[in-house]
Amino acid sequence: MSKGLSFLRGVIAGAPADEAGEVRAPSIHADAHAGRARAVVDAVLPVVDGGRFPVKRVTGEAVVIEAHVFTDGHDVPRVMLQWWKEGASRREEIPMKLRYNDEWHARFVAPAPGRYFYTVVAWVDAFESWHEELERRVDPDDIRIAARVGAQEIRAAAGRAADGADARVLADWAQALEADAADAEVDAEVLKALALDEQRADAARRHPDRSLEVRHAAELPLVVERVRARFSSWYELFPRSAGDTPGRHGTLQDVAKRLPLIAAMGFDIVYLPPIHPIGREQRKGRNNALSTEPGDVGSPWAIGAQEGGHKSILPELGTLEEFRALVADAAAHGMEMAMDIAFQCAPDHPYVREHPQWFRWRPDGTVQYAENPPKKYQDIYPFNFETDDWQGLWQELKSVLDHWIAQGVKVFRVDNPHTKSFTFWEWVVGEVKREHPDVIFLAEAFTRPKVMHRLAKLGYSQSYTYFTWRNSKEELTRYFTELTEAPGIDYFRPNVWPNTPDILHESLQSGLEATFKSRLVLAATLAASYGIYGPAFELFEHLPRGPGSEEYLDSEKYQLRHWNWDPEAGLRPLITRVNEIRRAHPALQANRSLRFLAIDNEHLIAYLKQSPDGRDVVVTVVNLDPHNAQQGWLALDPSEFDMEDDEAFQMHDLLTDQRFAWRGRHHFVRLEPRLPAHVMVLRRHLRDERDFDYYL
Amino acid sequence: MSKGLSFLRGVIAGAPADEAGEVRAPSIHADAHAGRARAVVDAVLPVVDGGRFPVKRVTGEAVVIEAHVFTDGHDVPRVMLQWWKEGASRREEIPMKLRYNDEWHARFVAPAPGRYFYTVVAWVDAFESWHEELERRVDPDDIRIAARVGAQEIRAAAGRAADGADARVLADWAQALEADAADAEVDAEVLKALALDEQRADAARRHPDRSLEVRHAAELPLVVERVRARFSSWYELFPRSAGDTPGRHGTLQDVAKRLPLIAAMGFDIVYLPPIHPIGREQRKGRNNALSTEPGDVGSPWAIGAQEGGHKSILPELGTLEEFRALVADAAAHGMEMAMDIAFQCAPDHPYVREHPQWFRWRPDGTVQYAENPPKKYQDIYPFNFETDDWQGLWQELKSVLDHWIAQGVKVFRVDNPHTKSFTFWEWVVGEVKREHPDVIFLAEAFTRPKVMHRLAKLGYSQSYTYFTWRNSKEELTRYFTELTEAPGIDYFRPNVWPNTPDILHESLQSGLEATFKSRLVLAATLAASYGIYGPAFELFEHLPRGPGSEEYLDSEKYQLRHWNWDPEAGLRPLITRVNEIRRAHPALQANRSLRFLAIDNEHLIAYLKQSPDGRDVVVTVVNLDPHNAQQGWLALDPSEFDMEDDEAFQMHDLLTDQRFAWRGRHHFVRLEPRLPAHVMVLRRHLRDERDFDYYL
Repeated sequence: MSKGLSFLRGVIAGAPADEAGEVRAPSIHADAHAGRARAVVDAVLPVVDGGRFPVKRVTGEAVVIEAHVFTDGHDVPRVMLQWWKEGASRREEIPMKLRYNDEWHARFVAPAPGRYFYTVVAWVDAFESWHEELERRVDPDDIRIAARVGAQEIRAAAGRAADGADARVLADWAQALEADAADAEVDAEVLKALALDEQRADAARRHPDRSLEVRHAAELPLVVERVRARFSSWYELFPRSAGDTPGRHGTLQDVAKRLPLIAAMGFDIVYLPPIHPIGREQRKGRNNALSTEPGDVGSPWAIGAQEGGHKSILPELGTLEEFRALVADAAAHGMEMAMDIAFQCAPDHPYVREHPQWFRWRPDGTVQYAENPPKKYQDIYPFNFETDDWQGLWQELKSVLDHWIAQGVKVFRVDNPHTKSFTFWEWVVGEVKREHPDVIFLAEAFTRPKVMHRLAKLGYSQSYTYFTWRNSKEELTRYFTELTEAPGIDYFRPNVWPNTPDILHESLQSGLEATFKSRLVLAATLAASYGIYGPAFELFEHLPRGPGSEEYLDSEKYQLRHWNWDPEAGLRPLITRVNEIRRAHPALQANRSLRFLAIDNEHLIAYLKQSPDGRDVVVTVVNLDPHNAQQGWLALDPSEFDMEDDEAFQMHDLLTDQRFAWRGRHHFVRLEPRLPAHVMVLRRHLRDERDFDYYL
Repeated sequence: MSKGLSFLRGVIAGAPADEAGEVRAPSIHADAHAGRARAVVDAVLPVVDGGRFPVKRVTGEAVVIEAHVFTDGHDVPRVMLQWWKEGASRREEIPMKLRYNDEWHARFVAPAPGRYFYTVVAWVDAFESWHEELERRVDPDDIRIAARVGAQEIRAAAGRAADGADARVLADWAQALEADAADAEVDAEVLKALALDEQRADAARRHPDRSLEVRHAAELPLVVERVRARFSSWYELFPRSAGDTPGRHGTLQDVAKRLPLIAAMGFDIVYLPPIHPIGREQRKGRNNALSTEPGDVGSPWAIGAQEGGHKSILPELGTLEEFRALVADAAAHGMEMAMDIAFQCAPDHPYVREHPQWFRWRPDGTVQYAENPPKKYQDIYPFNFETDDWQGLWQELKSVLDHWIAQGVKVFRVDNPHTKSFTFWEWVVGEVKREHPDVIFLAEAFTRPKVMHRLAKLGYSQSYTYFTWRNSKEELTRYFTELTEAPGIDYFRPNVWPNTPDILHESLQSGLEATFKSRLVLAATLAASYGIYGPAFELFEHLPRGPGSEEYLDSEKYQLRHWNWDPEAGLRPLITRVNEIRRAHPALQANRSLRFLAIDNEHLIAYLKQSPDGRDVVVTVVNLDPHNAQQGWLALDPSEFDMEDDEAFQMHDLLTDQRFAWRGRHHFVRLEPRLPAHVMVLRRHLRDERDFDYYL
């Protein structure tokens, strides 16, 4: 049996042995019912790759399902959405409603993180078809015959109702219809009214004939995660530089001292680069030098030395107990710690000695280090995922995740996942989330689009993006439009970063505060998840290692740094305000509603986000020119927001607390480099001042 | 077992028991290889509903397949397209080439009509990865080690080559590489050149290690039809009005007399409304009157009377022998006869007596006639596709098709297929095409979009469209853009009609010749398949039965008519010219290349079509205003057609034989109502007059 089959079997796991169903190349030799079924379930949406991968949602978020269902002729289908948690014995069933154009809708909210399935069943409903035709009948003779036809349907429904109260109601109704239809004294309109009695119709609807029910071919998977998988604010810092004393190696306890500041700025995930022992063989020196000088601390991503590997902590940082305390301390501040997962080894990692079969050996008896000729990374040994001992390797790597989950970690930022086997990732992410549905994985893959999408499809909760390299109005508009379109919107959750320890974009190298401000506001309002690498970002760190380089000069990746921890320093007050706004406004906590607004200045970008209930509307305008004030006319049509064309409304800038009175469809905006952004909430119904207070 | 499973099993029918494959929720307990496979086949295109329905092509047309394939890191995948005829024991295999962005391409041409499958396999190629890395190596020590690594790969390839010539070449090559790598006297660049020897590399490539091959999860179906399924010109006429003498019932022999004229106009399919005995019970009179007068001939769609049903011929039209002669006569004129299939019965159809179980009976002992309250069609009994004897019904209806196929019919125009069971259609079209792959089905479904698309997906070769109701520039542009987009372009083949016996659109009711001309040119150049209901169309028949009606006055549906058969009458010369152009120009014989051109006049519509090889470029411009001359500037950029920006080229109007010299990007066009269209071929390379003669 090929793997293809095992995949397909997975899709329909748990399907009941129903006799009617979606038939392909229908056979005339099939069971007694197959050819009689007339309902067609043409599509069920959303769907990712035909059901090969799950759609993603978070708890509390409505899962809106659309089905394309119809039948031949004018008969009326009834359509049910079915959904269930993986392994559940019972399916929830929700009636779907026809919107238009054969599109049926229903929604549900999954109660908890986990793996779910949904599908759609439909049948042609004889009672409903009769009822619907009868409403349109005018000929008295037709009504009389129709009443007798209906009596047959109703009597059949009574039979299906067995001996409950409905059975009696329906049997009586059928009898009355037949009697009145036979009685020439009864007026046809009176008979019609009896036949269309809504209360009794509902009783009939409770007992439909589902013997010719058709089931959609696929049971579509859905992964529900906790809200933070969609809405999160990340702060990355190097613990080695978290101390108070210049030149002294920072510790986990020093990181704990920074938690109040990070929490006050409004972040909810604190992400540390790898905290494991760092290899000594082939260690890189300051500024990525090939040789070290005494005291050089090396790159935290060169993991493993005699002190231990991926389950150990660099002694200079502290102990496992101190790490657990840090996790608890972060939780007390409403935050959580994210662990860096870099599945690779320094040459002196214990794995190299203990599991030589996990590496690729060269004919000269050395291990193949990471390289992309002519570039070489002699301090990094990649795992060989083609090893015969792949099961041993997979188990061990999973045990690394299990180890840190046992210490309280529930967020993993995975380093370069695209250089490790996708099959492995699908397995390990799936297994971990099966055991711990609240674990979040962020894929740090800066690579080709299809590769990044595959990682998102196979299970990563969030993905790094090209945001860092999208700077012009056109680039940003095109990229974020793409990110919010189907099918990606259903599985790819962007996490956008203005900077990382690896990427100091050219635009920031100017050191212009206006650029740092605009990139912050863009990141925080374009995407529901964003992060900064601090304190480098908020303190305007901007010198590159060399011309044309995107690496920081004197990067913490290779040495200790010392930072200013004053809460008022640099961008910290603005960051605090931006994160406050994000927390207060549901519009900014999801990506789907994003749309760009026309504004007649190429340096000004404007976009709108809206909460699912439509009540929270946030308009952001950013001046992309760090040197000059820019102004323009922004198009915003009040009629799209339940307002009259000429109704005045208020735009309240949440950054400055300024309030603008707008009316009509075009609105003047001017932004100076000093504060190059508006983040404005739309306030309607000026006639009732209290309505302003719904959000903030 | 649910039908869902049987569908899915169908998709992968014939999959070999390959051990490696696309793994879903990969298991660590799987067979020895599953976890080691690193290639990813993320998508295979084109695909319709995940492989639930086939993609359609015609013989001679390239089937271009795109696969999204990659692996982790920098290693090199090799990708193969596999395709095979249904039931074939052997698969053809074609190497796919990387274009960009992880998109791999290959193409094949299916040799004959029939049902095919295709899928994609891929593996990470150790030899190719080594080869590709070596090209980028510069360090002499690295090259020396790489040579030894390569020798191992080459020796393994030699082993796979068994004892052929390649085995000796490869073994020698491996030995030479090892010897030279060990010899410090051999220069690294010389060693590198030996290792990159292309001829020997090709020998290694012939014996790849495919043990970790990954197979796409789905085997995608493809239906190949003959060219006429895509490119056809239909002429519909009522045989009852084909005679020479007014008032005398026309015959099949009269139709035979019209074949030379129809062939001379350039049509290739002659379509007759139903030719079966017409019911007498509830027969409709002239102009759809509820009662008849003596001599009323009834509607041909009220099929069946005591003389017979769907397999019989109305005696007034002639005999089965005469029908066979007509089919042969049409073939002699390069045309074929299309049969109307209307699966419904007049009340006196023999089926009603012989197979009462195929109809829905009402409590008053009558058969349920067709109705959509308050509309009633008492002369039509629909079949009840929910009958317990559905197998008997399906077999009988299929035998109707088989009967006419046995008489030489290979084209069926199916009346109102959307009022019969979709499950039945999928079965019967599938079965007929399995036995007769050259049979073409046209779906006459004027209904909601998803219903029309379903019929196309389940097997109809061609589909009627909304063309008749799309008249403005915006309507036409939007509709034909939609028709040429994926996924519809891969299964929905439009057949567009300016009129039908049921639809005399308001725009034609003016009787303005300019409108008839523009609608003809639009139909014939926008779509590869089109048809007219004649002679009504070409003789400008335009009176509706009443105000607001789309029915013809004195329609042939209910009475005899008499027509002018002069080949020079009405639009016939223009039709002849338009069909000549269609036959000469591959650009007009497919739909995929259609794109609209900007032209700055709302009454002028312009579009371009191109043959797959790019050589035939046809630009059509139509004046939609039947009252006035219209002019404007059309945008056409010569650089898109392998010409210099300022290169002069010729636009040759094939309707008038006028030749226009164009240069630059904007071109003046003026059209008068007298002939409201240009159909122009673009002629390049003015420096060589002979190049003009490639087409026409």
